[in-house]
Amino acid sequence: METEKLKVLLKQVQLGQLDIDSALVKLRDLPFENLDDFAMIDHHRALRNGFPEVIFGQGKQPAQVAAIARRLSEHSDKVLVTRVDRAMADAVLLEFPELVYHPLPRLLVLDRSEATEKKPGVLVVTAGTADMPVAEEAAMTAELMNNAVDRMYDVGVAGIHRLLSQTDRLWRARVIVVAAGMDGALPSVVGGLVSAPVIAVPTSVGYGANFNGLAALLAMLNSCAKGVSVVNIDNGYGAGYLSSMINQLKG
Amino acid sequence: METEKLKVLLKQVQLGQLDIDSALVKLRDLPFENLDDFAMIDHHRALRNGFPEVIFGQGKQPAQVAAIARRLSEHSDKVLVTRVDRAMADAVLLEFPELVYHPLPRLLVLDRSEATEKKPGVLVVTAGTADMPVAEEAAMTAELMNNAVDRMYDVGVAGIHRLLSQTDRLWRARVIVVAAGMDGALPSVVGGLVSAPVIAVPTSVGYGANFNGLAALLAMLNSCAKGVSVVNIDNGYGAGYLSSMINQLKG
Amino acid sequence: METEKLKVLLKQVQLGQLDIDSALVKLRDLPFENLDDFAMIDHHRALRNGFPEVIFGQGKQPAQVAAIARRLSEHSDKVLVTRVDRAMADAVLLEFPELVYHPLPRLLVLDRSEATEKKPGVLVVTAGTADMPVAEEAAMTAELMNNAVDRMYDVGVAGIHRLLSQTDRLWRARVIVVAAGMDGALPSVVGGLVSAPVIAVPTSVGYGANFNGLAALLAMLNSCAKGVSVVNIDNGYGAGYLSSMINQLKG
Amino acid sequence: METEKLKVLLKQVQLGQLDIDSALVKLRDLPFENLDDFAMIDHHRALRNGFPEVIFGQGKQPAQVAAIARRLSEHSDKVLVTRVDRAMADAVLLEFPELVYHPLPRLLVLDRSEATEKKPGVLVVTAGTADMPVAEEAAMTAELMNNAVDRMYDVGVAGIHRLLSQTDRLWRARVIVVAAGMDGALPSVVGGLVSAPVIAVPTSVGYGANFNGLAALLAMLNSCAKGVSVVNIDNGYGAGYLSSMINQLKG
Amino acid sequence: METEKLKVLLKQVQLGQLDIDSALVKLRDLPFENLDDFAMIDHHRALRNGFPEVIFGQGKQPAQVAAIARRLSEHSDKVLVTRVDRAMADAVLLEFPELVYHPLPRLLVLDRSEATEKKPGVLVVTAGTADMPVAEEAAMTAELMNNAVDRMYDVGVAGIHRLLSQTDRLWRARVIVVAAGMDGALPSVVGGLVSAPVIAVPTSVGYGANFNGLAALLAMLNSCAKGVSVVNIDNGYGAGYLSSMINQLKG
Amino acid sequence: METEKLKVLLKQVQLGQLDIDSALVKLRDLPFENLDDFAMIDHHRALRNGFPEVIFGQGKQPAQVAAIARRLSEHSDKVLVTRVDRAMADAVLLEFPELVYHPLPRLLVLDRSEATEKKPGVLVVTAGTADMPVAEEAAMTAELMNNAVDRMYDVGVAGIHRLLSQTDRLWRARVIVVAAGMDGALPSVVGGLVSAPVIAVPTSVGYGANFNGLAALLAMLNSCAKGVSVVNIDNGYGAGYLSSMINQLKG
Amino acid sequence: METEKLKVLLKQVQLGQLDIDSALVKLRDLPFENLDDFAMIDHHRALRNGFPEVIFGQGKQPAQVAAIARRLSEHSDKVLVTRVDRAMADAVLLEFPELVYHPLPRLLVLDRSEATEKKPGVLVVTAGTADMPVAEEAAMTAELMNNAVDRMYDVGVAGIHRLLSQTDRLWRARVIVVAAGMDGALPSVVGGLVSAPVIAVPTSVGYGANFNGLAALLAMLNSCAKGVSVVNIDNGYGAGYLSSMINQLKG
Amino acid sequence: METEKLKVLLKQVQLGQLDIDSALVKLRDLPFENLDDFAMIDHHRALRNGFPEVIFGQGKQPAQVAAIARRLSEHSDKVLVTRVDRAMADAVLLEFPELVYHPLPRLLVLDRSEATEKKPGVLVVTAGTADMPVAEEAAMTAELMNNAVDRMYDVGVAGIHRLLSQTDRLWRARVIVVAAGMDGALPSVVGGLVSAPVIAVPTSVGYGANFNGLAALLAMLNSCAKGVSVVNIDNGYGAGYLSSMINQLKG
Repeated sequence: METEKLKVLLKQVQLGQLDIDSALVKLRDLPFENLDDFAMIDHHRALRNGFPEVIFGQGKQPAQVAAIARRLSEHSDKVLVTRVDRAMADAVLLEFPELVYHPLPRLLVLDRSEATEKKPGVLVVTAGTADMPVAEEAAMTAELMNNAVDRMYDVGVAGIHRLLSQTDRLWRARVIVVAAGMDGALPSVVGGLVSAPVIAVPTSVGYGANFNGLAALLAMLNSCAKGVSVVNIDNGYGAGYLSSMINQLKG
Repeated sequence: METEKLKVLLKQVQLGQLDIDSALVKLRDLPFENLDDFAMIDHHRALRNGFPEVIFGQGKQPAQVAAIARRLSEHSDKVLVTRVDRAMADAVLLEFPELVYHPLPRLLVLDRSEATEKKPGVLVVTAGTADMPVAEEAAMTAELMNNAVDRMYDVGVAGIHRLLSQTDRLWRARVIVVAAGMDGALPSVVGGLVSAPVIAVPTSVGYGANFNGLAALLAMLNSCAKGVSVVNIDNGYGAGYLSSMINQLKG
Repeated sequence: METEKLKVLLKQVQLGQLDIDSALVKLRDLPFENLDDFAMIDHHRALRNGFPEVIFGQGKQPAQVAAIARRLSEHSDKVLVTRVDRAMADAVLLEFPELVYHPLPRLLVLDRSEATEKKPGVLVVTAGTADMPVAEEAAMTAELMNNAVDRMYDVGVAGIHRLLSQTDRLWRARVIVVAAGMDGALPSVVGGLVSAPVIAVPTSVGYGANFNGLAALLAMLNSCAKGVSVVNIDNGYGAGYLSSMINQLKG
Repeated sequence: METEKLKVLLKQVQLGQLDIDSALVKLRDLPFENLDDFAMIDHHRALRNGFPEVIFGQGKQPAQVAAIARRLSEHSDKVLVTRVDRAMADAVLLEFPELVYHPLPRLLVLDRSEATEKKPGVLVVTAGTADMPVAEEAAMTAELMNNAVDRMYDVGVAGIHRLLSQTDRLWRARVIVVAAGMDGALPSVVGGLVSAPVIAVPTSVGYGANFNGLAALLAMLNSCAKGVSVVNIDNGYGAGYLSSMINQLKG
Repeated sequence: METEKLKVLLKQVQLGQLDIDSALVKLRDLPFENLDDFAMIDHHRALRNGFPEVIFGQGKQPAQVAAIARRLSEHSDKVLVTRVDRAMADAVLLEFPELVYHPLPRLLVLDRSEATEKKPGVLVVTAGTADMPVAEEAAMTAELMNNAVDRMYDVGVAGIHRLLSQTDRLWRARVIVVAAGMDGALPSVVGGLVSAPVIAVPTSVGYGANFNGLAALLAMLNSCAKGVSVVNIDNGYGAGYLSSMINQLKG
Repeated sequence: METEKLKVLLKQVQLGQLDIDSALVKLRDLPFENLDDFAMIDHHRALRNGFPEVIFGQGKQPAQVAAIARRLSEHSDKVLVTRVDRAMADAVLLEFPELVYHPLPRLLVLDRSEATEKKPGVLVVTAGTADMPVAEEAAMTAELMNNAVDRMYDVGVAGIHRLLSQTDRLWRARVIVVAAGMDGALPSVVGGLVSAPVIAVPTSVGYGANFNGLAALLAMLNSCAKGVSVVNIDNGYGAGYLSSMINQLKG
Repeated sequence: METEKLKVLLKQVQLGQLDIDSALVKLRDLPFENLDDFAMIDHHRALRNGFPEVIFGQGKQPAQVAAIARRLSEHSDKVLVTRVDRAMADAVLLEFPELVYHPLPRLLVLDRSEATEKKPGVLVVTAGTADMPVAEEAAMTAELMNNAVDRMYDVGVAGIHRLLSQTDRLWRARVIVVAAGMDGALPSVVGGLVSAPVIAVPTSVGYGANFNGLAALLAMLNSCAKGVSVVNIDNGYGAGYLSSMINQLKG
Repeated sequence: METEKLKVLLKQVQLGQLDIDSALVKLRDLPFENLDDFAMIDHHRALRNGFPEVIFGQGKQPAQVAAIARRLSEHSDKVLVTRVDRAMADAVLLEFPELVYHPLPRLLVLDRSEATEKKPGVLVVTAGTADMPVAEEAAMTAELMNNAVDRMYDVGVAGIHRLLSQTDRLWRARVIVVAAGMDGALPSVVGGLVSAPVIAVPTSVGYGANFNGLAALLAMLNSCAKGVSVVNIDNGYGAGYLSSMINQLKG
């Protein structure tokens, strides 16, 4: 029940066109239906944050993705589809060619927003080059949400000087996404060097006792550095979204 | 090598008391030793944030804990010791009675800081009453770091109306810590209701296929709500520290 | 040994054509052989429930499936084959074209039963659209067993208002199947809203620390809501069958 | 906001004492607060089912348990506390001696309800005698919810004739709880013999590669018998509650 | 229904005292009840093998154990109770002092059988001295079942010559029980040296990544030697019982 | 060093052609080299058992398999290659066409042995038809080792009467191989019905929480029936080999 | 900041062209930037060891691999690319034909170094022939690092005499790499026979409860032999590199 | 058979007192028995390395430990017992007071060897102070084996400057033992800084998703730094022993 309907109902009570008991019955279902109202408000808030609903592409049909994307594009100047492989991208683009495909992070993006100053503060770091797809998923998500993203790739702990030689960039960040596979040690080191929140993203890069990212995930959850929290394995989008939430926080 | 020593060295070069090659040899070891200098700066930053080094009590001897706490108290007006059971608390308090023991979150705290306005914005939520020790560890950590903490306990998803009837408090928060054991479902629901970062803390509350918090941990990592990240099982301190980092971020 | 044979044997004893010791020897093997008799009775019961033997298609040869299906169709007006991919379906349909293939739930169905009033009471709910194949397997199984099935799809906890706005449909159900992947949180929320039995079906939808449905499975087993029980990952058929068992229970 | 308050508000609108916009503001928070109303309705339903809130004793303080139990006893003629060891029971009974302690299922029970005919239909089965604590937790829970419970203990598959000699009792049941540890094979056998729903409860009885009930849990989830669903390891209470839900279903 | 009752029933039919339909009804329940008959036969077989029912002591009450043991002792000259710790043994012996307690394998034994020649052929081997409790449980079980048992302890693979210097004893065995913890490598080596069946018993001896015997269990399951099969972790009794089954096989 | 060489050496010592110290040096390496001698004896024993070395096909090149098979065929009238898929079989048969391919158990077999009476006593049982490839691997291995194999397929516990109606065949067996996937319950039931050794083979048949046979494996390891031991998942060959070892044991 | 720049800075201070405070500011960033300097030194050390950076091929694009390899080849006479399948090898060789592809260990190698005496001492052992790809990766890595490598393949514990007959070669080694899958028992046996360090490499050879090398990994970690340490599953390169480190150690 | 006996046998052959066939029979058992001879040689080698057999105390009886220690002390001037808790130590010392107990590493030590120059080169590093018991077990083991051990404790990656300020000590080491719990990240960082072999020891320090050291273990196995190998969780003794093996290697 939307606000308008609620007004009508109250008007009817006021005018004596509806007795209180009948109004009560109608209101009984209000609590949950009315949630749409609040959801809409929440939706407005999301739009102000510069980001509408996101489409999780994996496991969907290209036609479904194209249809949902087109519908979203009617209410928003930005559309994001994640986990899109090349074949799906080709099929979707046939139906909705305004989208742009980014093969490394496997994203389909539509951005018709007017150029606004992007807010600096998000730094995305990777341990190796193989972690780049996940990192780019995070970085592009954050960029689409109006953040200027600094990238520092391939600075894993096995050659710690690569990281240490760039501490100024680490210290400048307001929030840091660290993507790492294998031993997942990098977030601990980064977390020990800075006092900004670190969002650790374990990647499935590795083999053997890596168990598809489990080793990195456990290492990150056990980080002894302060301010480190963890998202799902390979969840670059989630890390990017969260980094924007934090970076865009008003003081 | 501290700044003072570095100044002396440069002075010697300036005065011709030290030739360049000898200075070079001395500087060769500078990079790492000098880190103490940067660490000190970092230390200063930590102090500005209102929080010095924290002592992880578990597995230490009471005498060790008392000694470290006393040493820290000489440089800081706040001291925090985590994971202190009653027996250790009693032993430590004998040696360092200025500390105050909080049995529920198992914390030893010293707070001689002058009263400052605490910054609101941190909300700590639990699914059940059994999650309260972890939640209090988070809440008291955040409070010690100058945050005003709102507490919303026992609002688990099995009785979802308890949570939904307080959405205003959810929406008012700038960052939310959600502690939950068993099925770990609460962070997903909270994350779906708000647009603030959610720090999910799986607790070891449960039995059987809970596997000491593993079930809750996996559920939280797989949350489909946006903005949810996860810390280690029962890591209330880590969640509280991170919540403060985020809440204290300058816009 | 069927009832008829047993009668003959007793008749022979009665007529003195078979002495007691010889009868005893013949009866010695009766307990187990005679089970066929009970099985038949059980079979009759199954038929009354509207459902004969079901064929698990996965790992069988198309020719095997076609042969078993045809044999079953000789004794029953309904045949159900589960876990049939497109290639197998095409091959089976060549040999047994009366079957109808439903690609989403991957079912082959034959239903020549006369139209009877289907009993309402089964509700099938999913967290996301990706859970629909499993949900449809449950729903179509229940429908084939003479239940009218209400479907409520894509109401996952990350947008809890989608679920809450339809509580009337939740409350109307006598038994609810809830299919969810990722964090598997939905059955707990549904179970907290209703007082009907909830059959939770973890799905393998997800990635990373989802571990092919393990995260959802564990979450569901640890649900703190009352009346929730769990079937195997992706076991839509089992959930649908059980929902019918419960819904068809005579008061 | 309770129904009474809602009536007052509508009355005020009707009487012109409250204008529509002010009423709207007050109603804005209605949806969730009003849930208490629905919860109360739901609470009534629970009472009709013969069962109020249940207290999970594990991890609580005796004083807490006694206080909650006493409060519940003021609104209900039945109180149930689960997972109560002997020491807690003694402490709680000191404060609330009306409760009765059952050491085998570790339950504290208060039942002041008038004797009503209990509905037959629930059968509780165990594989071994060591599974009896879990089975009794289920059986007593179901009994407290007004079900007459048939018990069939120590009929594990290693001596299958013990089970097979009592098939009449199996066939008479409307819903069956099967508690088994070790290999967890019994629910499959029972499920193959009956056409009633089977609620499988893995128990932590066993050692070595049993992994505290994991072996039984996995076996039960993979049961090839129809109509078997599973609850958490050692969750006798949950199984008993669900068995009552099903048994009490009106046709 | 026992054989005698069955005879009576047939007699009644023969004498015309019972009509066929009534007899049929009585026979309907025969199959399973009559199993008691077969079970008895099987029981006789067990007695011939020299071994009655065994009592699994773990988790039982001393009074229960004493009662069951005494009852068994009335029908058998041998009684075996496994997994009995010292406290339980003391309590049981107070009530049933004829039993003898063996603390290393934690067995309570009663053996009033007349001395018969024990059949040689069973060899029990351990990797270390810490595996001896499990090995003795196996050895004493086999001895009680009338097998002469050869023991070869502490011949683990880290000092392979200890094993190799006794190959004659290995080759003389008809069936070999090998108990090993830690890396569980010994059964593979033994299996490679002999052509007799090897029953591998992983023990929980070890620490860290041994995971309470899991490492040894997996190693043994993956043995590339022929003729190796595995029982549960620490299941000395099961291995001993099986070794007797095999050793006592008539050619 | 073979026996012949050893004789020569001793002869040289006897004849004074070799002094003792030189002989000692030559003998120093004897222990291990001479093992070939013992291995040869062991090889003879293997041949008497009717079975030479077996080739594990998986992961080998067809040319390798053909070469090893041909070499073995020069010393033995039987050759067995396991885990051979169709493509490898075709390639191997091109080079070594005397082999016969059995697609269900994926075996390549050469049997030029003269027809001998095969010893009865081995029974191979499966829970479902999908377990047949593993069961046939066991059965054909046992047959090749001169055992007459009885097959009882598709008698899983979900329809227990299928098994119970054939107890005579169960009781006739001297050793029983039971292959089962899913819940792995069948070996427990079989083990409870017989007093012969049961070799349980978990198969990878199943899905979801079956975890590729882990559920069945754990269930079998935890069997409460006596005389059950377990081999690796899908290890039909190992079970067949062991069943022959046991069946061929001389009393 | 390189050494040269540091000299210039010091010179400026010496000449009074730069005051001490300004120099201090410039030196503040020195520690980490200057690490490039140390890294270079470390790089020199690596070159002296005969081995430059190694390229992990898995997951990279052929063009990337070719480009990095060519760049490395400009500074080194040796290039090593690991985990290169045939398709990638073909693509890389098109662009950089000087590389040589070794299909068994899946290595691309460039070695233009002048022939130097390779240092003996490294022995590489495998349990089976299927472990050879991993073993060859280790062996060729060690050879490229100027070690003479002895190979002892297919000496698994199921036929222990194959290993024992070659103890002289075992005893001659200064460091031993042992690659084994399945039960992973070989390193324990080898470690028990020698007093040289043993580097155990679990391989993913096996099936079922091997869990892709987990069984072998756990066995090796639990080895009771002295001097055994473990690298990741299938990590032949890592084992080879470490074996060279140890073998090349100056006394 | 010892060398002496072998000589006698050859003498008898030489003297014609023993014919060749009889000698052959006696020699048949030589290979394995004679291993004692080689083992003795190996024992001598062990003594030259300064280290006899070590006693694993865990799970043994104090009397056993005392007896074995005393026996070893008769042939060696050094005795080491590992994993001795305080209670066992007190009991053992009563019987064998010459031993010295070190409570931190839980070692009982006897060292009557004459002072020799200990060889420098072993460095033992820990991430935290809680890792010290494991580190000391490693360090004292290496010291007892005549290595001078450098200790660098509490230099975990969360405060990376503590490690980096001491790179000279890292670079001076010939072999480094790194003990770390929690995220297990330190060995990767150390391995990236040095070109010496790194022996990583995961410790069980941590909580929650650390799973008693599993997180650290997996991280270390997945280290991307070169030259890192891993021993069992908390296996300080093994790491210390291996470090000595490597450090004592003659160039």
